[in-house]
Amino acid sequence: MSNPTAAIIIIGNEILSGRTLDTNTQYIAKRLSELGIILLETRTIPDDHDVIVNVILNIKSKKYDYIFTTGGIGPTHDDITSQAIADALNVPLELNQQAYKLIKDFYTDKGMELNKAREKMAYLPRDCSLINNPVSSAPGFIIQNIFVMAGVPHIMQAMFESLSNSLRKGDIIKSRSIDVMIGESSIAAELCAIQDKYNDVAIGSYPFEIDNKHGTSLVLRSVNMNQLEESYLELESLVKKFV
Amino acid sequence: MSNPTAAIIIIGNEILSGRTLDTNTQYIAKRLSELGIILLETRTIPDDHDVIVNVILNIKSKKYDYIFTTGGIGPTHDDITSQAIADALNVPLELNQQAYKLIKDFYTDKGMELNKAREKMAYLPRDCSLINNPVSSAPGFIIQNIFVMAGVPHIMQAMFESLSNSLRKGDIIKSRSIDVMIGESSIAAELCAIQDKYNDVAIGSYPFEIDNKHGTSLVLRSVNMNQLEESYLELESLVKKFV
Repeated sequence: MSNPTAAIIIIGNEILSGRTLDTNTQYIAKRLSELGIILLETRTIPDDHDVIVNVILNIKSKKYDYIFTTGGIGPTHDDITSQAIADALNVPLELNQQAYKLIKDFYTDKGMELNKAREKMAYLPRDCSLINNPVSSAPGFIIQNIFVMAGVPHIMQAMFESLSNSLRKGDIIKSRSIDVMIGESSIAAELCAIQDKYNDVAIGSYPFEIDNKHGTSLVLRSVNMNQLEESYLELESLVKKFV
Repeated sequence: MSNPTAAIIIIGNEILSGRTLDTNTQYIAKRLSELGIILLETRTIPDDHDVIVNVILNIKSKKYDYIFTTGGIGPTHDDITSQAIADALNVPLELNQQAYKLIKDFYTDKGMELNKAREKMAYLPRDCSLINNPVSSAPGFIIQNIFVMAGVPHIMQAMFESLSNSLRKGDIIKSRSIDVMIGESSIAAELCAIQDKYNDVAIGSYPFEIDNKHGTSLVLRSVNMNQLEESYLELESLVKKFV
């Protein structure tokens, strides 16, 4: 399969402490699916300089087409992602004039001074390109194949949408699904037989419960439209036998 | 710090495709915080045998006290976690008599047959111990320092609660927080000064927005109660200057 591949690195103590529910992974994962880019792994790591450096190097060594990070590019002392990524790639962190102007203009327009904390957000790895931040001006950045975005969900989402056009798209992974009110262990054997027949389709089986009754979401995913439709028809007649 | 450490591995294509929002990480993360166990990283990986084997070996090499996995121990063809973990640890997967009895009794009580799919959930790595599943009988298991749990949130939660007493607890990480309706870049410098003064306290700064107004959650976390209280008082008087 020629689809591009990707990894996500979520940077933030607040996720690891359980204080904050990470929703950035799901947002990016959904959008990558829509773009035909296959997300192969995600990590969540603390705001720790050496950990960030090591994880960036480890993920880079896996040769994914794209690496997305969220978190740690704000104005406070615990925002250390830009410095860590510069160090991981062995490039200097320096004042980026374009970022500086964006941030300066944003605060000037609001009648606020450009203090050191705000200026800090303009220090970026040399030779990166900027990711537009229509919400609060301080940009994300792209260096090599690494896309560095904010952690605040609505800012991250705006950043992702402003960069998504620049990503190489893959064959779209289409999915079809059927929800059925029987437990998955009742149809596991027949499901396995369908899976064995259609190599290009990934069949997932996800149990759920409604009003104390067991149900299963059966999800078919494939880039091969013929196999997807054929396996879906077969699944449909299987399910009819059970309900 | 003598607190035990941990990692979580979330196993499931449905998370990487964006279909499902992972809430298991936050549940486990919160509970570990309450137990004084420090969560140092999480991974999300696909239902892929070789990937699971490699990630288990990689995470094991990091010498965390505890490794928690969720997902992939159900009855269907895409549930391959038990086999992969057995292979990673080089132990045979075999019928576990205790698990077999639990599952058999559960389905017999419901007047359902013990088909191959249900029986499959009793095949576990040799010499593991079981994690009780009060919801649907098929147990999780513990092997070495790896705790293997279901992916369905309410089952995973029940499993976690049935094993949590067996975990070694650490000094409890207490936290205090103040929400303030000013942007974080306005108080970043003063915040940094407080952080520099209290080495045992981790100060996090998390921006939010309400009705188009910027606010910041300031979160202090520490096992050192004296430093936590002192830094909190200092933060409180800092915040008063701004509002």
